[in-house]
Amino acid sequence: MRIYDIIAKKRDGKNLSREEIDFFVKGYTAGEIPDYQASALAMAIFIRGMNEEETANLTLAMAHSGDVLDLSDVEGIKVDKHSTGGVGDKTSLVLGPMVAALGAPVAKMSGRGLGHTGGTIDKLESFPGFVTGISKEEFIRNVNTIKIAIAGQTGNLAPADKKLYALRDVTATVECIPLIASSIMSKKIASGADVIVLDVKTGSGAFMKKEEDALRLAEAMVKIGSNVGRKTMAVVSNMEEPLGYAVGNAIEVVEAIDTLKGQGPSDLLELCLCLGSFMVVGAGITDSVEEARNMLKKTIEDGTALEKLRQFVSAQGGDATCIDNTEQLMHAAIEYEFKAEKNGYVKQIICDEVGVSAMLLGGGRETKESEIDLNVGILLHSKVGDYVKKGDVVATFFANDEKKLNNAVKRFENAYIIDDKDIQKERLIRYIVTDEGVNKVE
Amino acid sequence: MRIYDIIAKKRDGKNLSREEIDFFVKGYTAGEIPDYQASALAMAIFIRGMNEEETANLTLAMAHSGDVLDLSDVEGIKVDKHSTGGVGDKTSLVLGPMVAALGAPVAKMSGRGLGHTGGTIDKLESFPGFVTGISKEEFIRNVNTIKIAIAGQTGNLAPADKKLYALRDVTATVECIPLIASSIMSKKIASGADVIVLDVKTGSGAFMKKEEDALRLAEAMVKIGSNVGRKTMAVVSNMEEPLGYAVGNAIEVVEAIDTLKGQGPSDLLELCLCLGSFMVVGAGITDSVEEARNMLKKTIEDGTALEKLRQFVSAQGGDATCIDNTEQLMHAAIEYEFKAEKNGYVKQIICDEVGVSAMLLGGGRETKESEIDLNVGILLHSKVGDYVKKGDVVATFFANDEKKLNNAVKRFENAYIIDDKDIQKERLIRYIVTDEGVNKVE
Repeated sequence: MRIYDIIAKKRDGKNLSREEIDFFVKGYTAGEIPDYQASALAMAIFIRGMNEEETANLTLAMAHSGDVLDLSDVEGIKVDKHSTGGVGDKTSLVLGPMVAALGAPVAKMSGRGLGHTGGTIDKLESFPGFVTGISKEEFIRNVNTIKIAIAGQTGNLAPADKKLYALRDVTATVECIPLIASSIMSKKIASGADVIVLDVKTGSGAFMKKEEDALRLAEAMVKIGSNVGRKTMAVVSNMEEPLGYAVGNAIEVVEAIDTLKGQGPSDLLELCLCLGSFMVVGAGITDSVEEARNMLKKTIEDGTALEKLRQFVSAQGGDATCIDNTEQLMHAAIEYEFKAEKNGYVKQIICDEVGVSAMLLGGGRETKESEIDLNVGILLHSKVGDYVKKGDVVATFFANDEKKLNNAVKRFENAYIIDDKDIQKERLIRYIVTDEGVNKVE
Repeated sequence: MRIYDIIAKKRDGKNLSREEIDFFVKGYTAGEIPDYQASALAMAIFIRGMNEEETANLTLAMAHSGDVLDLSDVEGIKVDKHSTGGVGDKTSLVLGPMVAALGAPVAKMSGRGLGHTGGTIDKLESFPGFVTGISKEEFIRNVNTIKIAIAGQTGNLAPADKKLYALRDVTATVECIPLIASSIMSKKIASGADVIVLDVKTGSGAFMKKEEDALRLAEAMVKIGSNVGRKTMAVVSNMEEPLGYAVGNAIEVVEAIDTLKGQGPSDLLELCLCLGSFMVVGAGITDSVEEARNMLKKTIEDGTALEKLRQFVSAQGGDATCIDNTEQLMHAAIEYEFKAEKNGYVKQIICDEVGVSAMLLGGGRETKESEIDLNVGILLHSKVGDYVKKGDVVATFFANDEKKLNNAVKRFENAYIIDDKDIQKERLIRYIVTDEGVNKVE
């Protein structure tokens, strides 16, 4: 077998066999196939596409290119949730305790990543003492006893994907559904999940700007799941404005806690109930999505989800008293009130601009080496469709550095758009995709 | 300008501007754009194609990526001929003296190259004393005084093409008309030609196996010529069997001399008259292709072409007495007669197999470092359509090594196919392509 022939085959629009895809992934991971051949193949795949079977085979080959987490000692069906990323997305912090409170094991390995704010792991470190680098034994013991553990990703997961993604990033071959779908799914499969619930964001603040692309990606990932024997469902959700009101790290933890107390933003709660109900069904707790949703609501009403958060934070060495006194979580020296410049309706809150604003405050990593300031962030007070009057405080900035604050505020001015006309707010949940088909939410 | 955006543009099927193509060619030649981005772009070009304007711009950018030969001191219109390569193709050796005898300047820079046999430069070195490494001054003086000089290629001609071709060769992006056309034309333009006459081979022994592909390549190159202001014509000619009877180096020189003496094979003579008449018209000697053809015929009949060869060989230090005593040119220790195994018509003489046979004798380079034995070669006695009887000698092998001879003969057994049925010989010249259009030869 020669990589030249594999490239030529895909170039001519033919389908690659499992053996050919394995040959490429193994050879590329081992450094035997050079970047210039891999990029030619990636471009051929980008333009010619890959069918379901090829995409599933690529996913499996990448999933098995490095370590595969063995979670067989965890009791029950392991359900993992993945979001394609958005601004203000703290669903994992809310969903984890809710789902665990119903007895579904939450065994989550999470990366830090780059971006506007830190990842779930960074956010959790807002709890004084919280340890994310726990041993595998402790991780599994915690999941089996209190049903939840979230640890920093260790090991060499899907190195083929890591290497190929870095190459695609510089050769204009990123925005390709089969390649994106297999990249995401390979990491989930290597992380040991039995059931995968996906939140595919769409809109100006999402990687997939167009709804039809987000839907195609969701369908592609659900199909991969079916083809490799991991039950997968996906939700396509709106990311035209930040989720909830808080954007940052500790500030998002506070909002997550508020939500578990029944005092959270309605969009965040709705998304958590939607994704959570699929997780609960996936874990085999109930067959009915409707019942799962009611069960999840009850974990908030009766305080079991909040109690689960306390157990979880304590188990990993964190100070759980912060949950009842959330003011202990944030230590920003400067508060700045951003005021509306005129009367009108909030027409748009451009996600990317809000995210960059939060990063400029110091809340996100620009490079792998950047230090995150967990205490800074932005709290919105009005969202799209709200009416504001000139001089109303529409956002509060929490900062620790005057210069960074000034830069962040300047950026935010582009983000917040007020208009005369009343605006129809867009629906949060757009589609539900399961292996039975696509369900448009009307 | 970013190479990423250029790749993405071509990936999406859009046309690249002259500035974008220049940016790529300059950056790639300078090593600022890495191979993995160039190969992604090459694949995008392969699949999406390039229009006439893009192809012309790529050609010019590559032609100017290194040295451009300045032949302004040569008097008259410089006409260059290029063949896409075939087995037994010694047309340059015949055409050069014929055309020069009519006063058209032949200023040819030629590479050694890899292949079944040596290149024109290697073949000329069969003349004892012949020097191909003459100075630029001597080269120009010879062209101005005797109208012909052929030298080994010096300088750094079209390095972008060299680098890009090597990359295409390992990334399955060779067989792409705009890329092949611009590769050939960039070298011709850098070599200083005013008028370019192309011989595009088609058939089993050619790079372009299919006639329609050869025609498309011919058209693409003629269009590049029009677009960059170098008058270009192309002939599409048959390469289903070797051209003439001789395959090797010195043995091909002998056949070329025989042709200039009026005793050459009819196919070789026909191709030379066809290509030569376009060269003569291109050089402005006459306006009429028909007249040019008659003038060329006359250079053979009256001995002026043969005399031109004597002048040319002498001027570059070679022993011109070999021209009248061609037996001085070949010094092979072993002669082997390959005999027909049965009665019948010669159905096929598979070019590639004959070529490999000649290489196995030692007549071609497998790697850049290989030494060529100029004295070995194969002389065919019967060509496609001829009737042969069992035991007839159909080819004579000239060798200097028993082992190499055995390997060569073994290979040749696959090449020579005899069949019961009479066979209609295919036409040698298929199409004439000029900037006025395509003319199918019936």
